[in-house]
Amino acid sequence: MATLRIMCSDRTGLVHGITGVLARHHLNIISNHEFVDAESSQFFMRTEFDILSAPAEHGSTPISAAISANTEIPNIESLQAHITDELRAVLPADASIVLSAPRTTRVMILVTKEYHCVGELLLRHAFGDFPAEICAVAGNYTTLQTLTEQFGVPFHCVSHEGITRDEQEERMMACIDEYQPDYIVLAKYMRILSPRFVERYARRIVNIHHSFLPAFIGAQPYKQAYQRGVKIIGATAHFVTNDLDEGPIIAQNVIPVDHTHSPADMAQRGRDVEKTVLARALNLVLQERVFFCGNRVILFE
Amino acid sequence: MATLRIMCSDRTGLVHGITGVLARHHLNIISNHEFVDAESSQFFMRTEFDILSAPAEHGSTPISAAISANTEIPNIESLQAHITDELRAVLPADASIVLSAPRTTRVMILVTKEYHCVGELLLRHAFGDFPAEICAVAGNYTTLQTLTEQFGVPFHCVSHEGITRDEQEERMMACIDEYQPDYIVLAKYMRILSPRFVERYARRIVNIHHSFLPAFIGAQPYKQAYQRGVKIIGATAHFVTNDLDEGPIIAQNVIPVDHTHSPADMAQRGRDVEKTVLARALNLVLQERVFFCGNRVILFE
Amino acid sequence: MATLRIMCSDRTGLVHGITGVLARHHLNIISNHEFVDAESSQFFMRTEFDILSAPAEHGSTPISAAISANTEIPNIESLQAHITDELRAVLPADASIVLSAPRTTRVMILVTKEYHCVGELLLRHAFGDFPAEICAVAGNYTTLQTLTEQFGVPFHCVSHEGITRDEQEERMMACIDEYQPDYIVLAKYMRILSPRFVERYARRIVNIHHSFLPAFIGAQPYKQAYQRGVKIIGATAHFVTNDLDEGPIIAQNVIPVDHTHSPADMAQRGRDVEKTVLARALNLVLQERVFFCGNRVILFE
Amino acid sequence: MATLRIMCSDRTGLVHGITGVLARHHLNIISNHEFVDAESSQFFMRTEFDILSAPAEHGSTPISAAISANTEIPNIESLQAHITDELRAVLPADASIVLSAPRTTRVMILVTKEYHCVGELLLRHAFGDFPAEICAVAGNYTTLQTLTEQFGVPFHCVSHEGITRDEQEERMMACIDEYQPDYIVLAKYMRILSPRFVERYARRIVNIHHSFLPAFIGAQPYKQAYQRGVKIIGATAHFVTNDLDEGPIIAQNVIPVDHTHSPADMAQRGRDVEKTVLARALNLVLQERVFFCGNRVILFE
Repeated sequence: MATLRIMCSDRTGLVHGITGVLARHHLNIISNHEFVDAESSQFFMRTEFDILSAPAEHGSTPISAAISANTEIPNIESLQAHITDELRAVLPADASIVLSAPRTTRVMILVTKEYHCVGELLLRHAFGDFPAEICAVAGNYTTLQTLTEQFGVPFHCVSHEGITRDEQEERMMACIDEYQPDYIVLAKYMRILSPRFVERYARRIVNIHHSFLPAFIGAQPYKQAYQRGVKIIGATAHFVTNDLDEGPIIAQNVIPVDHTHSPADMAQRGRDVEKTVLARALNLVLQERVFFCGNRVILFE
Repeated sequence: MATLRIMCSDRTGLVHGITGVLARHHLNIISNHEFVDAESSQFFMRTEFDILSAPAEHGSTPISAAISANTEIPNIESLQAHITDELRAVLPADASIVLSAPRTTRVMILVTKEYHCVGELLLRHAFGDFPAEICAVAGNYTTLQTLTEQFGVPFHCVSHEGITRDEQEERMMACIDEYQPDYIVLAKYMRILSPRFVERYARRIVNIHHSFLPAFIGAQPYKQAYQRGVKIIGATAHFVTNDLDEGPIIAQNVIPVDHTHSPADMAQRGRDVEKTVLARALNLVLQERVFFCGNRVILFE
Repeated sequence: MATLRIMCSDRTGLVHGITGVLARHHLNIISNHEFVDAESSQFFMRTEFDILSAPAEHGSTPISAAISANTEIPNIESLQAHITDELRAVLPADASIVLSAPRTTRVMILVTKEYHCVGELLLRHAFGDFPAEICAVAGNYTTLQTLTEQFGVPFHCVSHEGITRDEQEERMMACIDEYQPDYIVLAKYMRILSPRFVERYARRIVNIHHSFLPAFIGAQPYKQAYQRGVKIIGATAHFVTNDLDEGPIIAQNVIPVDHTHSPADMAQRGRDVEKTVLARALNLVLQERVFFCGNRVILFE
Repeated sequence: MATLRIMCSDRTGLVHGITGVLARHHLNIISNHEFVDAESSQFFMRTEFDILSAPAEHGSTPISAAISANTEIPNIESLQAHITDELRAVLPADASIVLSAPRTTRVMILVTKEYHCVGELLLRHAFGDFPAEICAVAGNYTTLQTLTEQFGVPFHCVSHEGITRDEQEERMMACIDEYQPDYIVLAKYMRILSPRFVERYARRIVNIHHSFLPAFIGAQPYKQAYQRGVKIIGATAHFVTNDLDEGPIIAQNVIPVDHTHSPADMAQRGRDVEKTVLARALNLVLQERVFFCGNRVILFE
């Protein structure tokens, strides 16, 4: 299965042009989504197709048959290049075209002391329910080392004690870069990130915030929620930008609360929402179902 | 705005073929959905496009310009026929093609004594929030006559008293046929329908059932729900077939209940769900967003 | 059925003391709620009991029997006074005691142009599903006059055109005071209220705000929600205080949205939430189930 | 903290009588719930109070002071006996009175191959978020042995291969009885239980069923849900009785699905609901918040 992602300015006939390229290569479309953002006139399209159904480069046998016959291994990269070139010819000049063959995405998780989000991800990962490889977990405390290692995943403690904020961040970036992850997940990592950090991994950091953003931005959202007397609390998974808690939202969910819940009760109940919202958001991101559109995202579920 | 609905057996290149026909006529696609049902290998597609953007039949002016110039009214029916013919040429033989120009759908509502569903629909209708014309309301009691008439809609009482079940149904069908409605809405019409009735208006009858089907089929679902001690109750809008409460489901929703709720309390709370589920289902049906697929529906929201 | 509402500083033995007074008068408790707010150490209790089961003042016949025997109409007011005095003796000095006999609460609704909230309330009211009397509707436009009057409820237009803000408000207060309502419902009344107005009807004004407060305070919440790219929108019913959109929250609910929804789509979907949240909040308020506790409310459902 | 649970036939003055006993012992009520089931006229009450605030048996020092002074350890059991006797004197003859001091409840988990429910419980347990001790996990496969043991919990494989159904169940009961658990949790244990098994652990077996009961009783509920075309799926935690899937429901929750979800997709999405519903139900049961009332439960949250 390959995934084709296209983003460009809108004009008439785009779907016809794109599907024509795929049809000429006998590529069988399994699933297709498109959307035009009315405000920005941007066209978004995501197509899944069976790349192995294509004929081998200059013959009539499908790639899959060639592979299983083990005759001449067909050049998938060359097919990708051909398709991309042909698409470019039918698309506006500003088109972004990403044709990704199946691959393993690498994810690194940053934590502090709370177990529920990282535990959820490690558990899914251990049983093949997480669509990526968790290459490592790093935290500024050792609290979650045992949990991580018992799942066979490396843990790194990058403590903030006795050093400056910058120094700790520097060390964390060094630790991250060793693993070359595609995405960084902040699973309750309670450190403020510098612009340098955010830019280095731009559009690749996903955070879980323990409130129904944009309500209760900042610290202690459950305390704020209690004091405001809200009847519903929630959690928000979002990409991280330099504006604290203001990055594009990927997923949100809520649960009801009432006057009998203390801030601690709300935090307890909120954890179930946090971990499932984070897992859902990561599924969407890792399956390449998320497009950036200004400060919002387009999601093809 | 015109709507094109296509259903046929699946094969490679369908989207390319269909969008090619539209592109040749310079029709601007506003929104497009397609889905292939893996079990039946059926292809479903729904496209909205601006029919007035097409050039007038043998010239280069768009239809809209011709209309506003008031010169020669272009033949939209002829355009529809051309497009349908060209689509038929690129689609499998079993294709169902429906190209509908903007029109007013007619809806007739059947009731007994409960006001909440019909009241909701009459209210939306009165303020232009209902995507169809409510041509009449008919009931087997006069309870809702005043409500209906105060909204300027005709009401007919087709009583069941003193006559046989068949006779009452016969009279109701006569009453319905006078109005020639496109759809019949059972807004808490508490009468069992004969196969004859169901067949006469096949795929055109929408019912609201006061349970989360298939739980609590039949009468008194709230009493059943209470006795079973469920923690959530719901409502289901569905098309009516000869199998009671077994027709294709269009929309469902639920609310929580607990041990403090009597069957009457559940019924009270359930009414809010019933009326909003029914209104949502009717929006989907009347905007032609619903396709039949065996005993299920495909919904393009 | 009578309702006893008590609020006081907490101490040991309160429930025992209160239930003792009721037991001595042979009053049968139907439902009882109590709650102690840990932060403020305030005790809240709400009890429903059958006042007609009490013996007539100095005899052994229950009040209900005396009434039906039509002998000597017993003095319910005197019973109320006795109970209140006895309760005062067992409660802390700061206790607020409200013992209300069954009565009809009067509600006045203020509107601008949107029909969905006032329509919902008028519809419930017409069929006996609203626990109060809607004595009148007043608006700054005539848009909803026909709807209101067709339900047999008086409508008053208090236009803001050609006069100052203060003058319009003055006239609106005069209009309200003519009806002496217990509660004022802002059913999408799009006028900012002065402190004078808010104080005059302190703790008696309920507003429906079209966002999940405290997110998107102020005007155009659906536009804000769209721009922030949230995945869930909501509505909030709250008491009105001088801090705009900051009064105690009574009820909230939400629905999911996605990138395909324009601000107008969100507004459309939001209306269903607004009207049901407002109706639910009013049920709670009118059945005297709401206690103020700082800027929060205690709800006994 | 001690918990007092009372169930008896209803009569006037019960709350007053019960709170009188507690007041005489200077026991500070922290939380109190009562409910009368109208259908059966049963009275249910659950009270949490601070047992250490009571004066030591024949003196005026509170138990807590006596304990910390380490003088003479007061006899809590004797206090319990006194209170129970005094309550019996003010309650109807059929009263069930349970006064439980703080203690550790023991839970045993039965599994087959699915990891999500047992993983969730082991994770919470490991971080002190589970209100009981998981004494062991037993399964009819070894699939979940590694996961269980990595959390330091014993795992027992009681295979069904090569032996009769009865024999396997016999061995499983022997395995369970070794651990003397208070509750048995069926965390996706895919074996049908005999009446003998159910009776042996009557009212102590909690199961998670992967449907919104009573819809889709029996095997393969997600396949049934798909075929019926429902728009919402759910999960149900319930006590196990001899009637398959018919025991008293403790907790339920749902999520939306649509025509794009295959039975496998529904199962995947359903797992998140299953595990959180099971965890919530166990919290309620283990905190002694659940009363049996015929085939329903009364829940004091």
